[in-house]
Amino acid sequence: MSEQAPLKLNEAELRGLLDGRWAHVREQARDVLQGERFAPVHGLSMEEHRARTFDQLIALTETGIPTYGFPESVGGTNDVGASVVAFEMLVADMSLMVKMGVQFGLFGGAISALGTEEHHRRYLPGVMSVEIPGCFAMTETGHGSDVQRLRTTATYDPATEEFVVHTPDEAARKDYIGNAARDGRMAAVFAQLRTPGPDGPIEHGVHTLMVPIRDENGDPMPGVTIEDCGHKAGLNGVDNGRLWFDQVRVPRTDLLNRYGDVAPDGTYSSPIENPNRRFFTMLGTLIRGRISVAGGAGTATKAALSIAVRYSDTRRQFTRPSAEDGPAQEVPILDYLAHQRKLLPALARTYALHFAQEELVTRLHELSKNEERDEHAQRELESRAAGLKAVATWHATRTIQTCREACGGAGYMSNNRLPQLKADSDIFTTFEGDNTVLLQQVTKALLTNFQDSFGDLDQLGLARFMAGKVFETVIERTAAIPLIERLIAAAPGRGDDSGLYNRGWHLELLEDREKHITEGLAARLRRAKKDGSDAFEVFNQAQDHVLAAGRAHMDRVVLEAFVAGIDRCGDKSTAKLLNRLCDLYVLSVVEEDSGWFLEHERLSTARSKAITAAVNELCRGLRPYAVQLVDVFGLRDEWLGAPIALGAEHERQGDQA
Amino acid sequence: MSEQAPLKLNEAELRGLLDGRWAHVREQARDVLQGERFAPVHGLSMEEHRARTFDQLIALTETGIPTYGFPESVGGTNDVGASVVAFEMLVADMSLMVKMGVQFGLFGGAISALGTEEHHRRYLPGVMSVEIPGCFAMTETGHGSDVQRLRTTATYDPATEEFVVHTPDEAARKDYIGNAARDGRMAAVFAQLRTPGPDGPIEHGVHTLMVPIRDENGDPMPGVTIEDCGHKAGLNGVDNGRLWFDQVRVPRTDLLNRYGDVAPDGTYSSPIENPNRRFFTMLGTLIRGRISVAGGAGTATKAALSIAVRYSDTRRQFTRPSAEDGPAQEVPILDYLAHQRKLLPALARTYALHFAQEELVTRLHELSKNEERDEHAQRELESRAAGLKAVATWHATRTIQTCREACGGAGYMSNNRLPQLKADSDIFTTFEGDNTVLLQQVTKALLTNFQDSFGDLDQLGLARFMAGKVFETVIERTAAIPLIERLIAAAPGRGDDSGLYNRGWHLELLEDREKHITEGLAARLRRAKKDGSDAFEVFNQAQDHVLAAGRAHMDRVVLEAFVAGIDRCGDKSTAKLLNRLCDLYVLSVVEEDSGWFLEHERLSTARSKAITAAVNELCRGLRPYAVQLVDVFGLRDEWLGAPIALGAEHERQGDQA
Repeated sequence: MSEQAPLKLNEAELRGLLDGRWAHVREQARDVLQGERFAPVHGLSMEEHRARTFDQLIALTETGIPTYGFPESVGGTNDVGASVVAFEMLVADMSLMVKMGVQFGLFGGAISALGTEEHHRRYLPGVMSVEIPGCFAMTETGHGSDVQRLRTTATYDPATEEFVVHTPDEAARKDYIGNAARDGRMAAVFAQLRTPGPDGPIEHGVHTLMVPIRDENGDPMPGVTIEDCGHKAGLNGVDNGRLWFDQVRVPRTDLLNRYGDVAPDGTYSSPIENPNRRFFTMLGTLIRGRISVAGGAGTATKAALSIAVRYSDTRRQFTRPSAEDGPAQEVPILDYLAHQRKLLPALARTYALHFAQEELVTRLHELSKNEERDEHAQRELESRAAGLKAVATWHATRTIQTCREACGGAGYMSNNRLPQLKADSDIFTTFEGDNTVLLQQVTKALLTNFQDSFGDLDQLGLARFMAGKVFETVIERTAAIPLIERLIAAAPGRGDDSGLYNRGWHLELLEDREKHITEGLAARLRRAKKDGSDAFEVFNQAQDHVLAAGRAHMDRVVLEAFVAGIDRCGDKSTAKLLNRLCDLYVLSVVEEDSGWFLEHERLSTARSKAITAAVNELCRGLRPYAVQLVDVFGLRDEWLGAPIALGAEHERQGDQA
Repeated sequence: MSEQAPLKLNEAELRGLLDGRWAHVREQARDVLQGERFAPVHGLSMEEHRARTFDQLIALTETGIPTYGFPESVGGTNDVGASVVAFEMLVADMSLMVKMGVQFGLFGGAISALGTEEHHRRYLPGVMSVEIPGCFAMTETGHGSDVQRLRTTATYDPATEEFVVHTPDEAARKDYIGNAARDGRMAAVFAQLRTPGPDGPIEHGVHTLMVPIRDENGDPMPGVTIEDCGHKAGLNGVDNGRLWFDQVRVPRTDLLNRYGDVAPDGTYSSPIENPNRRFFTMLGTLIRGRISVAGGAGTATKAALSIAVRYSDTRRQFTRPSAEDGPAQEVPILDYLAHQRKLLPALARTYALHFAQEELVTRLHELSKNEERDEHAQRELESRAAGLKAVATWHATRTIQTCREACGGAGYMSNNRLPQLKADSDIFTTFEGDNTVLLQQVTKALLTNFQDSFGDLDQLGLARFMAGKVFETVIERTAAIPLIERLIAAAPGRGDDSGLYNRGWHLELLEDREKHITEGLAARLRRAKKDGSDAFEVFNQAQDHVLAAGRAHMDRVVLEAFVAGIDRCGDKSTAKLLNRLCDLYVLSVVEEDSGWFLEHERLSTARSKAITAAVNELCRGLRPYAVQLVDVFGLRDEWLGAPIALGAEHERQGDQA
């Protein structure tokens, strides 16, 4: 295959391309996060780990990193993109990554987004300096995914001009709350807001209030009960806890009142009339956390692949039958096709997701700069954030697991880092939105073309929503539109079996699958609606179809981002290599779902077999570049930490006679 | 679908069927493994965990469990099947499971299998009583999978009638050795045996010697260096370590000499002339460890499913649109199709693997009773053990991961047990043989019809082996042969699209796939051989094909075992239910590989789509029985330990107004 002629990878060029728009933030992180203080550790007790993580958090305040996401009015740099990128660089200990995310991203982010200037002035300096360690108290034991049904209440008392924050039952206790068990002083508490009305309390839906939870001595405030969630699978440097409020009173002005306010007399007002729309608008402002998690999952994946690829490049096992005249040689395990199959398609997808993430962060950043709110763009951003978070974290879980196995017994040793990467990142598929629920949101947005959907978290909302709608499947592009359309236009016609490596054909194939699945789903839901079937049953029987649509959409979006990324590469030979990697990404995606493509006659049986052969061929062709392709991720050796990735295996072999 | 009429599950009957031939061993374990001492714990330091595990091991000596696998001559009960079944019951803390496996199974097992009566008398009582804690020192840093190339040497010195055991380089240090870091007093050391010859030392291949590693005070013996492997992803109650030997001398009689002996004058003798055959015969006697791991993986999977299914049955999220007159109700998450899809096909496969495991243990047990060695049966057992270990441990890793995710944040909390089950069982895909290597052995045995293969661990052996062979694919059955053949005979003809639930068709479909893949592989290798291609390249380019053949074989073998197991069920209604579960197993296997079946025109596109619909339908139909289907595994509540599996969620909901 002529495509597989040797190429030269320009590492500086590729590093620059991957570092992207926020290269300076990545460089700063590489510069700052050095030495003993930030190096990976293992085997600490939970308390030691928590203390260390808190110290690290304080140390970060000397770097300027905490100011990225905050308004200039309080000393921030108002660079949302930078705040997300900085988060993802903290891979040396993901407990610090998450602790920082809780303090600056979630707690600080809620005050920024939902509070008004008075709140910013009062709280944000203390958030940035970690003088006010804080919690983002949204999730309750009874409701994680279904935020709209939280049960904590905040009832206004005009007599004292205070809100009474209360936990009515065990379902309403705040659960898994980061910073709660040890360090938090305040919490941004999500609660059902109630004001007095002539016929009893009036409900205004979920709002957020600032509630002190510990006094200066670190003791719980009166009426606040705190429990430690205890030991977890990973992230034991983060002190997750539970919170109960027993008629806790906070001043009226501690309601974060950007989207809903209560006057001293108890009159409620909001710039958004529709309560549903208000709720989803408020939630939408918190999208940064989800995007950060997708980025963090990406870095964890890159770290695991860096370790596994470097080790497999040096680790040898089993002897290659000797050439006539030479001695028998043991084979580096990355030379085996099965090993390449484990690591290289995962590496290709990691690249693809990297470009998709960069695109998403850019979009988030630009929307944050807009004066005018663009409803459609915001919906589209929320949908893509949900989808990318889901696919990136599933990919992380699967890939890090594979890397552990690919390193055998060495991969099971804590000092080789893979166990911690696996355990820490494991919860990423759950927090900031359960992946299955998120993928449904993606599909809903597709079906509604990003209109009127308010990012509804309620999966049954989908079924209810169907009534009387006319669906129109519109393929929306965000990345490099003219380039993508040009490539598709140049694709060979359907039924033409030439050009397995034709990018236009790839783009068309994934777009066609997305369109077909989504249209089929719409038709199915419409039919069921006409029959008068039970809305829950209709939704539930189609749930696998719903998820398939979301997945197909994301595969297409991620491919387009990869294609657009390669187009920005300034070095021809490097771009060619990236194109092979992109071939591997898309063909392994198609191979994984070959059943669908064959069932729907999008591939002939011969073509389907040819794709398997092509994936093998691409693995073989990319193998010589594998180490360079992980090195350009630019994760410092001391962040990887693993001796097996840092020459120990090579050194050991030198010792062997 | 009439198949889905309500059924009554007879729990006692099903429990009896699952408990099987060694039900008394399972009952004893349920009886003995109770109370504080054996309950699951988490959050211990490594040293605390090791101490606790060692105490538990000592406590086991009071139960008779350690005697199961040992000869009657030394006070054992010589019940190999019982020893494997007892191992798999120790799921309350898998560190104990593995520690027991190291002491009685590996260390004691090596002395039993490779030693002679003198060794049995001298060592086995101390092994059973744990007065001699011991190591199975096979794996070296440089060679795990490729045992034949171990580098530790044992050189005979006729002057003193001793062996000199030596570690020549870092590749040869013993690594990951259980019992080495803290407790072990002796080690069964695998080393290259050398005797003096006229022209320098004569090599006799890998043999095993008893080497003291610590004195009575617990200090390393002279010449022995011991290092702690340190903290691991899981199993931190097991003290894995590294061993180096510096010219350590042991008496001639401490060579385990059943398969090879050295006379005082240095003359080597063996009942097996061919060194290759001798090596694989010796390794073959150690097959019990691999079978035990498959069983342990099965129990870990059952425990995780028990937790996740019970929790999902009570945990509710999102509201079902209310009936006209009732209040809105939140939906138990196991009612969602997507959640059923996560857990129920995995449950079906767990059942299938259970029956395959029971069959394998029975076969092992019966062969151990045979006076005469049956080469073919032994090869067949080894191949099946390799295959079942691979598929059962991969299934465990995947399923426990899925269960964690299915329990959301609760699944991430250590007290809910899933983190520990995941971390502990993770290494099962690697130890006792890397799964990828094992699956290749399966295929090799298929290609050679279990002849002449000596269970060769060297994957390149496969390529070398091809020269001039004529392949003949023979489908070998072990389970209920007449029943299976009757079912296949009654299957509708190919191309007949009726009877999606016809068992004969299922059996034929999987058998046909295995045959086609294996024959295709054989033809491919033959062709390449004829071309005179490089043996390594030939093997390597076909490696995915090799693995696919092994996987297809195991799917068929496991299905046959499931079918045979159901045939033993005495209750008609329960058998019907098991048949639905078996439908779910086989149809989800086919669905997962639908690309292959379509590519090879074994399924029409319509049939393939119908299978997806059938899997959904089966999930829905089995959902009401899910809790019973995990309860009959008979894992004690206190072994599961997880509050979310033991009523905590139900209780919490009772609290909610």
